[in-house]
Amino acid sequence: MRVAILGAGAWGTALGVIISANGHEVFLWGHRAEPLHKMQRTLRNEPYLPGIDLKGNWNFTSEIRDALEKPELVLMAVPSKGFREVAMKLEQVEKPIVSVTKGIEYESGMTMTQVLESCAPKASVGALSGPTFAIEVAQHFPVAIVAASRDEAIARQVQAILHRPTFRVYTTTDLIGVELGGSLKNVIALAAGLGDALGFGDSSKAALVTRALAEIRRLGVACGAQPETFAGLSGLGDLTLTCFSPLSRNRRFGERLARGESVERILATSHIVEGYPTARAAYKLARKMNVQTPIIDEVYALLYEGKNLRDSLRDLTTRESKAED
Amino acid sequence: MRVAILGAGAWGTALGVIISANGHEVFLWGHRAEPLHKMQRTLRNEPYLPGIDLKGNWNFTSEIRDALEKPELVLMAVPSKGFREVAMKLEQVEKPIVSVTKGIEYESGMTMTQVLESCAPKASVGALSGPTFAIEVAQHFPVAIVAASRDEAIARQVQAILHRPTFRVYTTTDLIGVELGGSLKNVIALAAGLGDALGFGDSSKAALVTRALAEIRRLGVACGAQPETFAGLSGLGDLTLTCFSPLSRNRRFGERLARGESVERILATSHIVEGYPTARAAYKLARKMNVQTPIIDEVYALLYEGKNLRDSLRDLTTRESKAED
Repeated sequence: MRVAILGAGAWGTALGVIISANGHEVFLWGHRAEPLHKMQRTLRNEPYLPGIDLKGNWNFTSEIRDALEKPELVLMAVPSKGFREVAMKLEQVEKPIVSVTKGIEYESGMTMTQVLESCAPKASVGALSGPTFAIEVAQHFPVAIVAASRDEAIARQVQAILHRPTFRVYTTTDLIGVELGGSLKNVIALAAGLGDALGFGDSSKAALVTRALAEIRRLGVACGAQPETFAGLSGLGDLTLTCFSPLSRNRRFGERLARGESVERILATSHIVEGYPTARAAYKLARKMNVQTPIIDEVYALLYEGKNLRDSLRDLTTRESKAED
Repeated sequence: MRVAILGAGAWGTALGVIISANGHEVFLWGHRAEPLHKMQRTLRNEPYLPGIDLKGNWNFTSEIRDALEKPELVLMAVPSKGFREVAMKLEQVEKPIVSVTKGIEYESGMTMTQVLESCAPKASVGALSGPTFAIEVAQHFPVAIVAASRDEAIARQVQAILHRPTFRVYTTTDLIGVELGGSLKNVIALAAGLGDALGFGDSSKAALVTRALAEIRRLGVACGAQPETFAGLSGLGDLTLTCFSPLSRNRRFGERLARGESVERILATSHIVEGYPTARAAYKLARKMNVQTPIIDEVYALLYEGKNLRDSLRDLTTRESKAED
């Protein structure tokens, strides 16, 4: 079976490793020709997945028409910032398109599959999300992930193509719940990184994760998600991973910020950090839905309103409450 | 106000640090006189909380009658193994007794407060549980915890005595939910440690945590707990901390086991590891309640039935499922 993967970063390539290991043909597309040529030559994506050999049936192209020639499935693995621009090229696609990108479009408040639906009206859409680092997936570490689509048949098709013993794919029809869980956790990871840099300890972080999940669930449910989705892989699972693992880019962003680096400098010297734009989009979405999101609000104020770090943390840790919510 | 703390290990002493910082008088009791004398002399509990000065109004005793002379509140901080033996000395106590111990009695299947109720019929009981390492609490890192009692007034009294800006105490009436969440997570931490030793990666651990919380919730609800309690500090919060933090003793137990050390040797060379006895009690409880607990079952088989580690992990990672549960 032929699968097109749009976006040749770490996650798109790692999913290609899984798909090709399952015997399918991968068409990997990226904007710039030169890195694709190099991948064709070396059968590696060294800048993003150092040391990983790309085995099986791979094709590399910077011509999106080549990638879209008769795929059974299209995976969208481009960052949220450039997502719509690529989605607009999919107007004629009739096969399922699955977003593996975690983010919310700031201007519209749309999730990535909502952007897809508006740009590719002939295609069914879905999302794939869960607690997975690209480098661990590419090394075939055992992981679990969830395929979501309002059309259960689409979710099952994604499962059929990607599932393998070390890459367990579950299915759900709660698409918006899966997308919001995956997106919002990146904002919380920034807060976790701030705490890490200030030496707040792991007990403190566990409390942050617990309160944050309640906040994410509240916002998600207001947007139409099922509450139980947030107890699953794309909610609790992904939030936990992002906040606790040293590997998380979003957590590290917070850590570097707390150590005094400027936002500009961190963005210029790391791969895409989705938590940064998502903080702004999530803050706007929460106001629109009239949901209280104290942790997201503090991260937003810190990143976009120049709020002082110490003031932010004081406001986060001194809120009083009589009951867990 | 006078507070008796029974059990002079890390957690009992750390709670004394919080209580004395709030201006209350602490009576710390332990079995053996010699360590108590040393604490009286040095105002430190060096074996358990190295480097922490015990400031404020402390009394140290190995005579339980001294500790129980007119306290307003009794905290039970002895390991689950010796819990009933100490509880039997509390028959005449009429003030609230709060368990801060995480475990299930194997013979009876009782939680610690159920043991208290059977031994101290005149007292109201409660539990205090959440994601907290003793050493971090003793250093006044910001943490959050939950005080549980079926009698809300008791939970609020505990909150009033212990709450401070860096030690946020929430309240709930779901006593059994708080106790089971706190106890069962220690079993899961052993599994997390096994995975760590085998280099399974953090993505894999996040999936384990997610599936484990569903399993804990199933068993808890069957025992009468509220499902939402497991999304709180004593459920998700504590589970996350125990599985992800390098500081967790239970996680480290699993790690050492996977590296080939014998159970006997690990137990002999570490402080109390509650996950070890709890695995057996939890397995028995799940059978009694007729609840499926695949992760607990594998840990039990590994620890108590001599099951091979590779077989256990194969059985854990190859279970198939079509939906998140």
